[in-house]
Amino acid sequence: MPKYNYPIKRKPFEQRKISTSNRGMLFEELINETNDQYIKRDIAIIYKKPIPIQIVNVDYPSRSMAKIEEAYYKTPSTTDYNGVYKGYYIDFDAKQCNSTTSFPLTNVHNHQILHLNRIERHGGIGFLLLYFNKLGEIYLLPNKELNEFVERANEGGRKSISIDEIRESCIPIKESFPIRIPYLDAVDILIERKARN
Amino acid sequence: MPKYNYPIKRKPFEQRKISTSNRGMLFEELINETNDQYIKRDIAIIYKKPIPIQIVNVDYPSRSMAKIEEAYYKTPSTTDYNGVYKGYYIDFDAKQCNSTTSFPLTNVHNHQILHLNRIERHGGIGFLLLYFNKLGEIYLLPNKELNEFVERANEGGRKSISIDEIRESCIPIKESFPIRIPYLDAVDILIERKARN
Repeated sequence: MPKYNYPIKRKPFEQRKISTSNRGMLFEELINETNDQYIKRDIAIIYKKPIPIQIVNVDYPSRSMAKIEEAYYKTPSTTDYNGVYKGYYIDFDAKQCNSTTSFPLTNVHNHQILHLNRIERHGGIGFLLLYFNKLGEIYLLPNKELNEFVERANEGGRKSISIDEIRESCIPIKESFPIRIPYLDAVDILIERKARN
Repeated sequence: MPKYNYPIKRKPFEQRKISTSNRGMLFEELINETNDQYIKRDIAIIYKKPIPIQIVNVDYPSRSMAKIEEAYYKTPSTTDYNGVYKGYYIDFDAKQCNSTTSFPLTNVHNHQILHLNRIERHGGIGFLLLYFNKLGEIYLLPNKELNEFVERANEGGRKSISIDEIRESCIPIKESFPIRIPYLDAVDILIERKARN
């Protein structure tokens, strides 16, 4: 849950560094900017879903006004981003990773793996975007390859993907401007692969 | 905004009847049940997006706990539902209508019309689901037909769609069980039309 904190009154920076709460913030912002550009240029219609919130108490100070006075973050049941590109349903989650040596699979929730597999089964394109912030490297990890690593972990193998494996099995994305994280270039490669199979 | 109220502590029924706040609730619940069934039967992966909320103040009673103490409903920039079916990107909004004679176009926000047009341009399938609760009639209004009525209104014509026009230009949906609002049957007809053009 803390992952989805998006307080306007932020905690002091020192406190923020301790928790994992805001670790994903910068990458998320870059992806949101990217999606804005994609919409503006009429390339794709992809949005971040709103953060799911459990509302407990609402006050109505006036007829047309509702003030939420008690609410809690809920665990999302799916991924954070979805939309349409070249007629394809696109569905992904963004993961920022502090490690320089591997991506821990504990960062991916079981329900997200289940969701991405469902998406692929129904003809959509599912993937993860990985951001190694200390290496400055960004990758698209296709659902197919993600599943192979998840299976290895489930069979008692390592619970992470080494950076060498990432570099081998993922599609690299170069940070750019004004389309900050041009991940649809990597999706184009996935679409080509789909067409070949 | 009041449209998106989803308080757990509901207002007394008398008050609720005055406002339009909960007018859409029952239809929404039926669609959510329908989507649950579609997912369970592995027919389609379609979800309602969370209600977008502007968080103003969060308290942290403990390290792992975040309590939202002040927040407000935001106007959604898109539609309420999206997902994937037979490889198609599906995007729609659900509108409940108390009138027995027409569907007022004021129920559809400009940004929703813009959004649905973008979706169609990128190969997705966009539409509205209309529920005339007093008539017990449900329709899928395809984006193409919606645009014709919106254009007529913009050119000074009537600002609503008469029930006769609805019956003529929409695809009817019959309430059912356990798939309560089997709207994908109507989407199949849209897909056939798409294939023919």
